[in-house]
Amino acid sequence: MESVNRATLLITCPEKPGIISTVTNFLSEHKANIIDIDQYTTDPQAGIFFMRIEFNVGNHTLEKLEEDLHVLAKDYTMDWSLSSNKKRKRMAIFATKADHCLLELIWRWKTNEIPVEIPLVISNHEDLKEIVESYGIPYYHIPLTKGTKEDAERKAMELLEEKVDFIVLARYMQILSPNFISKYPNKIINIHHSFLPAFIGANPYVRAFNRGVKLIGATAHYVTNDLDEGPIIEQDVQRINHQYTADDLKVAGRHVERSVLAQAVSWHVEDKVLVHGNKTIVFQ
Amino acid sequence: MESVNRATLLITCPEKPGIISTVTNFLSEHKANIIDIDQYTTDPQAGIFFMRIEFNVGNHTLEKLEEDLHVLAKDYTMDWSLSSNKKRKRMAIFATKADHCLLELIWRWKTNEIPVEIPLVISNHEDLKEIVESYGIPYYHIPLTKGTKEDAERKAMELLEEKVDFIVLARYMQILSPNFISKYPNKIINIHHSFLPAFIGANPYVRAFNRGVKLIGATAHYVTNDLDEGPIIEQDVQRINHQYTADDLKVAGRHVERSVLAQAVSWHVEDKVLVHGNKTIVFQ
Amino acid sequence: MESVNRATLLITCPEKPGIISTVTNFLSEHKANIIDIDQYTTDPQAGIFFMRIEFNVGNHTLEKLEEDLHVLAKDYTMDWSLSSNKKRKRMAIFATKADHCLLELIWRWKTNEIPVEIPLVISNHEDLKEIVESYGIPYYHIPLTKGTKEDAERKAMELLEEKVDFIVLARYMQILSPNFISKYPNKIINIHHSFLPAFIGANPYVRAFNRGVKLIGATAHYVTNDLDEGPIIEQDVQRINHQYTADDLKVAGRHVERSVLAQAVSWHVEDKVLVHGNKTIVFQ
Amino acid sequence: MESVNRATLLITCPEKPGIISTVTNFLSEHKANIIDIDQYTTDPQAGIFFMRIEFNVGNHTLEKLEEDLHVLAKDYTMDWSLSSNKKRKRMAIFATKADHCLLELIWRWKTNEIPVEIPLVISNHEDLKEIVESYGIPYYHIPLTKGTKEDAERKAMELLEEKVDFIVLARYMQILSPNFISKYPNKIINIHHSFLPAFIGANPYVRAFNRGVKLIGATAHYVTNDLDEGPIIEQDVQRINHQYTADDLKVAGRHVERSVLAQAVSWHVEDKVLVHGNKTIVFQ
Repeated sequence: MESVNRATLLITCPEKPGIISTVTNFLSEHKANIIDIDQYTTDPQAGIFFMRIEFNVGNHTLEKLEEDLHVLAKDYTMDWSLSSNKKRKRMAIFATKADHCLLELIWRWKTNEIPVEIPLVISNHEDLKEIVESYGIPYYHIPLTKGTKEDAERKAMELLEEKVDFIVLARYMQILSPNFISKYPNKIINIHHSFLPAFIGANPYVRAFNRGVKLIGATAHYVTNDLDEGPIIEQDVQRINHQYTADDLKVAGRHVERSVLAQAVSWHVEDKVLVHGNKTIVFQ
Repeated sequence: MESVNRATLLITCPEKPGIISTVTNFLSEHKANIIDIDQYTTDPQAGIFFMRIEFNVGNHTLEKLEEDLHVLAKDYTMDWSLSSNKKRKRMAIFATKADHCLLELIWRWKTNEIPVEIPLVISNHEDLKEIVESYGIPYYHIPLTKGTKEDAERKAMELLEEKVDFIVLARYMQILSPNFISKYPNKIINIHHSFLPAFIGANPYVRAFNRGVKLIGATAHYVTNDLDEGPIIEQDVQRINHQYTADDLKVAGRHVERSVLAQAVSWHVEDKVLVHGNKTIVFQ
Repeated sequence: MESVNRATLLITCPEKPGIISTVTNFLSEHKANIIDIDQYTTDPQAGIFFMRIEFNVGNHTLEKLEEDLHVLAKDYTMDWSLSSNKKRKRMAIFATKADHCLLELIWRWKTNEIPVEIPLVISNHEDLKEIVESYGIPYYHIPLTKGTKEDAERKAMELLEEKVDFIVLARYMQILSPNFISKYPNKIINIHHSFLPAFIGANPYVRAFNRGVKLIGATAHYVTNDLDEGPIIEQDVQRINHQYTADDLKVAGRHVERSVLAQAVSWHVEDKVLVHGNKTIVFQ
Repeated sequence: MESVNRATLLITCPEKPGIISTVTNFLSEHKANIIDIDQYTTDPQAGIFFMRIEFNVGNHTLEKLEEDLHVLAKDYTMDWSLSSNKKRKRMAIFATKADHCLLELIWRWKTNEIPVEIPLVISNHEDLKEIVESYGIPYYHIPLTKGTKEDAERKAMELLEEKVDFIVLARYMQILSPNFISKYPNKIINIHHSFLPAFIGANPYVRAFNRGVKLIGATAHYVTNDLDEGPIIEQDVQRINHQYTADDLKVAGRHVERSVLAQAVSWHVEDKVLVHGNKTIVFQ
């Protein structure tokens, strides 16, 4: 008997009447059993249409289905992607010295909450080598100095080549070149602190402290060439008060960062995030 | 030119392959343009299937569509309901003396956030008569004493007859008879305080105070014959601390109650809530 | 027998060893019974010291205590204020057309949650006249046009003169002149929307929508000459998702605004907020 | 020059006029410089008075101060405790197989967010031995079977004897005997899941799932002989929806549990929690 796979189809295309029934008919014809369907349109008349369909399908049928999707997609000018539980996504983690985001991801990977493979961790420092390797994950130390940045990125790209599906910057704190980013469009997830109001530039925690903010937050987003301005995947905040020192703010910030980043990565892994211009549709 | 209506179709039926494409095809054939589709199944093999579809459709077509739905529904053993923006839902409010939930609903009705009609408010006291009537809403005072409860309910039912689609108990604090409830299945929304842990019985705020709880909450649910045990629509909590007196807890409780109730009513009005046994599916 | 008053003393002064015992001794000597004491210091060596003491005290003693406080305050270079439940704070509300913040304040005033007097509401429009007057609160319509702004402010100041202790801008949306602000230092409370990241300038909700933010918030602060940059009293957020239209964001924003503003006003009325430079100490 | 210590004094005693000035005078006389003072009284007339004072004091003076406190405490029938940063609290962790709470505590210990010593981890299983020992923390495996429970507890008590100041049950899931509990009054912290409403007994997550709750929570509390009914230190919740399976609820529950437990342990370590009957005062 043929084994059953759980697959997820993501579609982005111009809005057109009948598109949902076309796709669900297509899946019916391929003996796929729909489990979950989410869709969103920016405008029912002439907008962009986004859909996520999760379905069960037999092993061989999946291949045929993928083949036939190319034809359907052409007719509807669809961007689409198809993933299945036959193949886990492969996640690279970039880190420096801070361990909180890295360890949160590793812990959720170990408990299988985030069902990925982690082929490697890359860091410009050696501080986290021991703990990462204790989990059996290869750790590559690529030092970064002003003159060697290009070299370092090339080395990283060689290590990643054909090995990973997406990258998480777990407090990596380094700006990636447009060349690097263009290789992984909407495939690099970053986390940064967020405040109401925003404090752009250096020492944001000190400035948040000086301003007496009552909430500190974190934002996880896809990396684009606009530093920290890519499409937002998830945000959250934590309440603080005047008794928090600037250091206490950093500690509180760390906790928000790790939970927001882990949530964003989860959704990415489950193919729940679609990008539209500079914003995301998240099918929770 | 025919005017366009926004309509919402809710469906509950046994899970069956191809059901989504059947319904979306049906809508396509009736020239309905799907805006939003949400579905949930308790089990893809042999579970119960729930779907909410929002669509634009021409005026005349809507009638034909409704007619034909009867046939489709029979084939699939569907429970279904169809509503449209041609006809606002009519909401009765039951209250006693407390005004916070009542005024929150009236305020959101006035700002059109909750787009309903309010044909009447019924209360066993006269305290809120003036404020309710100042909004142009009829107010009926039906006193309640031990011996007259049956009479009072009969009087209320006469007032409601053919006039309302659903009822909100805005801190009504009276137990309705099974006979009354059976006339409005999943059409009566109640709000009550909630604590971690729960305090069943009298003086819950005093007991929550004595136990030093750190969160107080509220739960909005549909009314069934099991007092306060019907399907939960929405819940929320507010953080408190040891400095709150039992009276402060009541004040905090009021704020959670009014926002939770208003949210639950909103979702009900937008046909976003489906009931399955003693739980709800809420398509947010 | 002499009646008992509940009084609150706020103190700001340079940090000095023994200051707490000095003040508590002073209160003991004046037969005041301390109910609650909160303090904060920016630096135990040479910082600024902030204290809030709530105490019970006899009627006549309160006068004597206030007299003697002048002497004590001089010795310690204290800024101080003393308030008591003998005299409710008087709150003016400034509004335009939006009613949500105004009505929230009036509702909490009516239920005595915010125990103030409201001598008047001032607005540059007539929209809210009827609803405000239905609560027995005087409503003054002072139209605003470009050329008449100075006149309008003068008229407002005459109306407020000796009548109010603080002012709440309930979505007033007008910039006050430095001259006006200087008459009410840390006595004018404003509310504005807040986003992560911040969107400075026009149409923030549209821009938040375009950026796909996942949280929208509100900030209540004291008004200074730096527009929307005064000391923050309270902030909160609400979770949203990609399905929210720009209009939905505004609705969600309204709910956060009214609860954040009401909380900030409550704390101000209870003398729980002290200002230090451009930040607040809030003794919750 | 004498080194300076940060010390914290906790006091519980019957309410009495002048008690705050007495204690602050006492500290002034002992050259202690008060950093932070928090107090709470259940009733200003004849209630119970609780105070936490944090202060800087010289090394030798601290000893003298402690000595003299015995005399003061006697006069005021005070329960008191004095701790200082000269000596870290020693925390034992009890676990079974689940690692999430254990690892969260170890991680916060490693980053020094929770500044304790961890002399040992005790478990009735061997699953976590390797990971715990990799942090250099001794791990003791004490198997538990029905007949051996008394023996096992005796063994545990021998291991703990004079070695620990408090115990954290990190999902230990075993009921401790009254004899064991009596050795550590208000010194054993437990974490358990919490729901609105509460589900007492077996399979709470399945029952929460069946009831369709919209929030799941966790409660950290001191252990008393009333199972899961001891004084609550901290609670929090996470929002869920109908799409969560019973397994998803468990995952969400784990995240709330670890953050709530870690917060409760932090406050305990910083001497911010006082117990009053079956409730806590938490000076945040």
